[in-house]
Amino acid sequence: MNDLIKEIKGGICAPLGYEAAGAVSGVKSAQGPSKGRDLAILRSIVPAACAGVFTTNVVKSAHVPLDQKRLANDRAQAIVVNSGNANALTGKQGMKDALAATGLAAQLLGLKPDDVLICSTGIVGRMMPMAKILRGIRAAAKQLSPKGANDAALAIMTTDKRPKQVAVEMEIDGKPVRIGGMAKGAGMISPCMATMLVFITTDADLPAKTLQTCLKRAIRDSFNMITIDGDMSPSDTVLLMANGQAKVTPKGAGLRLFQEGLNLVAGRLARMIVEDGEGATKVISVTVAGAPSRDRAARVARAIANSSLVKCALHAGDPNWGRILTSSGAAGVQFDQDNVDLHLGKVLVFKNGGPTKYSAARAHKELSGKEVEIRLNLNSGAACATILTCDLSEEYVNFNAEYHT
Amino acid sequence: MNDLIKEIKGGICAPLGYEAAGAVSGVKSAQGPSKGRDLAILRSIVPAACAGVFTTNVVKSAHVPLDQKRLANDRAQAIVVNSGNANALTGKQGMKDALAATGLAAQLLGLKPDDVLICSTGIVGRMMPMAKILRGIRAAAKQLSPKGANDAALAIMTTDKRPKQVAVEMEIDGKPVRIGGMAKGAGMISPCMATMLVFITTDADLPAKTLQTCLKRAIRDSFNMITIDGDMSPSDTVLLMANGQAKVTPKGAGLRLFQEGLNLVAGRLARMIVEDGEGATKVISVTVAGAPSRDRAARVARAIANSSLVKCALHAGDPNWGRILTSSGAAGVQFDQDNVDLHLGKVLVFKNGGPTKYSAARAHKELSGKEVEIRLNLNSGAACATILTCDLSEEYVNFNAEYHT
Repeated sequence: MNDLIKEIKGGICAPLGYEAAGAVSGVKSAQGPSKGRDLAILRSIVPAACAGVFTTNVVKSAHVPLDQKRLANDRAQAIVVNSGNANALTGKQGMKDALAATGLAAQLLGLKPDDVLICSTGIVGRMMPMAKILRGIRAAAKQLSPKGANDAALAIMTTDKRPKQVAVEMEIDGKPVRIGGMAKGAGMISPCMATMLVFITTDADLPAKTLQTCLKRAIRDSFNMITIDGDMSPSDTVLLMANGQAKVTPKGAGLRLFQEGLNLVAGRLARMIVEDGEGATKVISVTVAGAPSRDRAARVARAIANSSLVKCALHAGDPNWGRILTSSGAAGVQFDQDNVDLHLGKVLVFKNGGPTKYSAARAHKELSGKEVEIRLNLNSGAACATILTCDLSEEYVNFNAEYHT
Repeated sequence: MNDLIKEIKGGICAPLGYEAAGAVSGVKSAQGPSKGRDLAILRSIVPAACAGVFTTNVVKSAHVPLDQKRLANDRAQAIVVNSGNANALTGKQGMKDALAATGLAAQLLGLKPDDVLICSTGIVGRMMPMAKILRGIRAAAKQLSPKGANDAALAIMTTDKRPKQVAVEMEIDGKPVRIGGMAKGAGMISPCMATMLVFITTDADLPAKTLQTCLKRAIRDSFNMITIDGDMSPSDTVLLMANGQAKVTPKGAGLRLFQEGLNLVAGRLARMIVEDGEGATKVISVTVAGAPSRDRAARVARAIANSSLVKCALHAGDPNWGRILTSSGAAGVQFDQDNVDLHLGKVLVFKNGGPTKYSAARAHKELSGKEVEIRLNLNSGAACATILTCDLSEEYVNFNAEYHT
């Protein structure tokens, strides 16, 4: 971590001028860490510049086209988030429901509907229980507070076991600037876009176009480089608000520092999502180095990280490196199998076309902790990429066979 | 099934002029249905035209380049198959071992080494236990018999629960022509090539070039349209031998009938592989219709069939059609989500952009049998494709966490 950036408390409300709330609408069960909280509102005290990145899935939650349309003015002041129902594959009624929800929030908060965004997460293909949602919005609007970040982080969870928040502060032009974020993840996490809900706030003063550029850069190495199960959600959204309350417009070195802070917030949240993957018992980092391009490195790393066979083996701490190399060979990227090196943790297991004389016990040990590192060097270039993923456990299958009906 | 094609017994030895054997080399455990058989030899009594299709994985078993080189003469007379060790990622020593194994077989059978092919399947990344392999080849060579098909089918199994064989007979130009086949599958099964070992014999008289064309056609709709876990093996090979002993050269309508027979053999073997997928409890057929092209239909079907979330839901018979549509939207194929129809078995669950008023109990029933049909109509073209897959069970994870070390 850059010495100029320090971690602070407060999540999305750490930056000046933000309020949040997490209320109970009755959609989600009262059990679990959220204690029934399932309706969050995030509000800036003034209109904020806003950037967004959305799922690339052809199938989209109703909120995605609505938010995209509303972001045409580069601005937002409040975001409603409901968990338990993704409002996806709900047709015209789904869009009406999203309009009604944001309409009520706008009215209660005294805002224009165009300045209110919405994100929905949860079960796909079921109509929104609007009586509950509207009741939740009323409750959340009353509870808005600069101390509400934790409640909001709890309210956006679905199958997450823990709330995910982070905030940092850095000095730019002699003044403190803050960035805060919260996320929810757990299942249906795959690269090729921010595949979860993520909300980031800052009190820096930045125009939406700069924000959008900064957000895309931050996403590239964080949310786009994680995978839980290779499935991509129709709701995935990352929103970044900048309300200018710190009275600083980062430029030059200041903007670079801001970008670093943003990368840090995004990276932390991405890692938290993997740590909390459904059924996950360990975080696996797959690095492919020595590739002709970053894109090709990432494709190979992703093929390894998405292999069920690899993830099952790593769940058991099994140094089954044959599966790792085999999945790497199916990525559609050419390389010479006799010229690659593979490390499991610090143990070199494959070199010069064949297995090394490694100690199986040591290799097993390298894979048995909570953090596992796999490093494949293709020795055919200078580019490199890292994908974070988790293991595949019986719990994942149990969980996903039971969820829903 | 075409009335002109009838199913017969005898597997790969059903066509005239083939002998097979399945011997114990000591690589595989003596437990299980194979009773330790792990070394098969298939021999034609005369040199046979031979066609082959191999894995597209960059990482290849030693046998793949060796067989490809030897098939340059369009001919083969014997095939050695060892199970328990894939001879993959074994470097130069692996190639020496493959040469030694085929060399011994050629010597024992009185053939040129160039007319002997080899296929290896099993664990990846471990050197071949050559003393055992050579002993197994000696034993198998002695046991070769026109009645050895079943032993051979047992000897090529790895995690398969059942041997997989089929044979058909048809009349061409007034004479009977036969096609027989055997396969092994179980794990690491994915489309994008024949992803398993398959051996097909015929007594038709056909040049290698025609055979190769027929084989590619047969594979397109069979082995290339199944997936167990999306993982692609480095050993995948399909070989087709034609020894001419039926004294018939299929042409015109006769060749079309031969192709149909071959398609049937390939289709049956492909289905058997899915039925016997690791941990599988049901066969799921995913059909995507109304697509602008067959390729796009297949891409969408594959995305559904490879989704862990879909496969877990179907394991439980859960009509979680949201996951099906969501995975279809991530295939990189454009369609209008408000214009698709989705059937689970006979139950229409989604139409006009939203769920229908279907009976959840009936939908659950449609998914509870051994055979499940999913049919997605994109309503944007006339092309169609079907992928066969199986469900994802706790047993798959248990199994693949324990396998290997």
